[in-house]
Amino acid sequence: MVWAQNALSTDWSIQHGLTVRPSSSFIPGEVDKSGVLATTAPVTLFPSPFPESCFRQGHFLQTTYNELYAAISNDEVWIEEIMKGLIEVDDFIENLWKVHQSVKEEGYVQQLSLGLFRSDYMLHVPSSHELLSLRQVEFNTISSSFGGLSVLVASLHTHLLTFADPSAHLAYPDHPLFEAREAGSAKSNSQALPSDASVNVPPINDAVQVLQTGLSAAHEAYASSKSEPKLPLCVLFLVQDNERNIFDQLALSSTLKFPVFRLLTSQILSHTSIDSDNHLRPLVYTPPSSPATRFEVTTIYLRALYAPSEYTSAESWSARLHLERSAAIKCPSVLSQLAGCKKVQQVLTSTSPDHVRRFLPDASQSTLSSLRSTFAPQYDLDPDSEGLAIALDESRAANHVLKPQREGGGNNIYRTAIPGFLKTLPSREHYRSYILMELIHPPAEAKNTVLRSDGTVVSGNVISELGIFGACLWRQGERAGDDDTRSGFEILHNEGGGYLMRTKGKDSDEGGVAAGFSCLDSVLLY
Amino acid sequence: MVWAQNALSTDWSIQHGLTVRPSSSFIPGEVDKSGVLATTAPVTLFPSPFPESCFRQGHFLQTTYNELYAAISNDEVWIEEIMKGLIEVDDFIENLWKVHQSVKEEGYVQQLSLGLFRSDYMLHVPSSHELLSLRQVEFNTISSSFGGLSVLVASLHTHLLTFADPSAHLAYPDHPLFEAREAGSAKSNSQALPSDASVNVPPINDAVQVLQTGLSAAHEAYASSKSEPKLPLCVLFLVQDNERNIFDQLALSSTLKFPVFRLLTSQILSHTSIDSDNHLRPLVYTPPSSPATRFEVTTIYLRALYAPSEYTSAESWSARLHLERSAAIKCPSVLSQLAGCKKVQQVLTSTSPDHVRRFLPDASQSTLSSLRSTFAPQYDLDPDSEGLAIALDESRAANHVLKPQREGGGNNIYRTAIPGFLKTLPSREHYRSYILMELIHPPAEAKNTVLRSDGTVVSGNVISELGIFGACLWRQGERAGDDDTRSGFEILHNEGGGYLMRTKGKDSDEGGVAAGFSCLDSVLLY
Repeated sequence: MVWAQNALSTDWSIQHGLTVRPSSSFIPGEVDKSGVLATTAPVTLFPSPFPESCFRQGHFLQTTYNELYAAISNDEVWIEEIMKGLIEVDDFIENLWKVHQSVKEEGYVQQLSLGLFRSDYMLHVPSSHELLSLRQVEFNTISSSFGGLSVLVASLHTHLLTFADPSAHLAYPDHPLFEAREAGSAKSNSQALPSDASVNVPPINDAVQVLQTGLSAAHEAYASSKSEPKLPLCVLFLVQDNERNIFDQLALSSTLKFPVFRLLTSQILSHTSIDSDNHLRPLVYTPPSSPATRFEVTTIYLRALYAPSEYTSAESWSARLHLERSAAIKCPSVLSQLAGCKKVQQVLTSTSPDHVRRFLPDASQSTLSSLRSTFAPQYDLDPDSEGLAIALDESRAANHVLKPQREGGGNNIYRTAIPGFLKTLPSREHYRSYILMELIHPPAEAKNTVLRSDGTVVSGNVISELGIFGACLWRQGERAGDDDTRSGFEILHNEGGGYLMRTKGKDSDEGGVAAGFSCLDSVLLY
Repeated sequence: MVWAQNALSTDWSIQHGLTVRPSSSFIPGEVDKSGVLATTAPVTLFPSPFPESCFRQGHFLQTTYNELYAAISNDEVWIEEIMKGLIEVDDFIENLWKVHQSVKEEGYVQQLSLGLFRSDYMLHVPSSHELLSLRQVEFNTISSSFGGLSVLVASLHTHLLTFADPSAHLAYPDHPLFEAREAGSAKSNSQALPSDASVNVPPINDAVQVLQTGLSAAHEAYASSKSEPKLPLCVLFLVQDNERNIFDQLALSSTLKFPVFRLLTSQILSHTSIDSDNHLRPLVYTPPSSPATRFEVTTIYLRALYAPSEYTSAESWSARLHLERSAAIKCPSVLSQLAGCKKVQQVLTSTSPDHVRRFLPDASQSTLSSLRSTFAPQYDLDPDSEGLAIALDESRAANHVLKPQREGGGNNIYRTAIPGFLKTLPSREHYRSYILMELIHPPAEAKNTVLRSDGTVVSGNVISELGIFGACLWRQGERAGDDDTRSGFEILHNEGGGYLMRTKGKDSDEGGVAAGFSCLDSVLLY
């Protein structure tokens, strides 16, 4: 049975661009000198069951989360207050902050800011007698990836469920979850099926549409060229060298209705410029294939520059500053990237002061309750704090994870390793770089079968993480500080939708799909 | 410049399934044990110029060519007469004929026959002062491939021509051929472009639609199950093991609105059956992933079993016979496959007797003239024939090619090698296996740049071959022989359209794209 799904999946993936460039451990660079090969993205062969109430809650909350993080990004005074301790001990945060400070001194020329966000959750079983609930793992404000491939995974699973004859379950054994649900349940891909289809399929995944609509909103809000003479407008996707996940990015860029170019981070300073005589600072891009052609960049979408390891020299920081001071709308701005730090997520759990209420003055009490219900207990490691007491006590730490401020996965410290790890840090000052989060307890019995990028198939116990995408365009308010920080702050576009289901083997604590630890999945609602 | 096209092309190809499985010389089997890798199909980076009049002539003639080969397939008496000499010396032709004879003795239970054809042409320059004309290279009646990928190549070239900003020619240098043509010229992909697009793009390629409509016509004409109890209906794509060109096939099968399964030739006898108690002989298929499920096959589409090398044992011929005697509509039948022999193409050039007129009694004189104008002079090698005299004379042979009856390319003998080659044959009886064709002289100055499947890029002089696709469904007439061979013969569906442009380096005489000698292209009309 697995053979059929496997062969169907690998063929389907290639045909539809559900692909990644192969890793160098699978195909060494010297074998594929030109980098033309592709392989299936790592996927589960089955969609994973997911409670519809939790799925809907995540979707419902997304526009509120979007507004929350837009409002945080708008409040540099608050961010600085929260980050102060971090800036002193974390040179990555410090350098980001310096970029903001430098542009602020010169004066920002672009008040619009775009967020393409993803809020990641796990299902949590509080105890054996309580209902499953959603708990937020993190809120991504930069390079929220896999929207493009997620849409394709939902289509792949729909294909496998409905292949040839929807009622025959040719790719899967019979299972109650595969049976059609009552009319009136979630809108789903089954709308595209023959009317007699009697099969439950993953809900439609709007991720590409949500992200594209956000990019379009920014591109249009930029309005017109600020150059003299006026230039044609474009959007830049800022990407890493040797990006294996390029087809996820192309799924977003290739069907946009305006010019989009891919720019490597190593080419920012050589391929873009800001005319020093133009006080509006339009960012001008010259395509390398056509040096006589110039475009003005309305929006720069960062699928790079999120991790400290990408800033390899002073020039990297010059390039980031160059972008930040330009008139291009940044997705995200430095302030918005900082708003995604784990420290912010931890501080938001406080109810005294009630930051969430302050940032969301118009939200209803029930919406705020629903939002807060997704917060896992989190702590800082300040001296004499509750967090520090838990972290240093092996038995209490055993139900926690220690997270650095860094993006990209792979740096978390788990459970009883926490006290020992903290003791290896050079000084207690460095504790500020971490937050402590109570572990989320996902359902224990979940199983799936995974098709890896090298073609191997593995079955076993799994845990999954559901991300909901959001897009938000806002105008930054005056930076007057004090009470009325929202003066002038205005949300111009706010949409949530689309999902990323990421599933990994249960014995793996880390979850980067591209790194091969985990894989792309979709959901069957129940 | 080439860099930009190359990178754009390899990424676009993977994203859109313009792909092949890599060859074992590029990626050895032990590196990719599961066979998950894919790479770009070999493509030209530029579309090739092609005269619109010749392009339209090929399209115009296709339905007439379809009818001609349907009528030939309908006339077993004529085919036997033509093939008699070949049957004696060519065991492949002999075995095909035996399959037909065997089913004829038992009695055919399926009168419907489907042809998915491709007529291949080259541009011919008769002399320096004459106009370019179309000359037919061959007419394919079995496994006419590359319809699926051809459509994608036209889209790739359109993407490169219109990338980001259609007026900026970002991927290509300026060239008069790229400029928009007069309104009223060929319908083209430019319909999908912004109204201010000022660029000439390849004409829309309808190949997938034409081939799919043919398959649908056959599937529907089969009407209803002949099994007791009735079974759900399906179509089978008969394919080779380790098919590298699978994505061309999936481009046809994956969007059909009825169940389609892929069946390996090695699995015909194990996965399909004919109930000996049912005199209607429905062909029943059992998917290996679901042994309890049975489908009845309306149509079996051969993308295999065209070459002698595929018949590795007596079982191969048993399998072919098994399919031929079933009630499934064959695409093609054995008779239709035989109609595609080079020998038939050569005999059709005769005007005394005028076979073409006899097979196309209703065609207008001008249509027949246009059809005949595509015939290159061709000869048999009968004793004392004009053909033999040319073939044995090195100076006269220098303008000819010697072609065996075999499909698949790679077996032609060119120019002055012909006399010597003939002398190596065991006896003059074997001359019957060959026909002699005057060489076609394509335009000399054509150049292009080719992106190969291993990522290497090669530029140089090229020659191109244009194939036009056709689909024809007909009912075989009574096999009364004699004068009225068309009694009962009826064409139920006849459509032409879509194109394959195949381009190869000029120093290579052979043209199999999959074998890496040549590559997929599209056209810019002028």
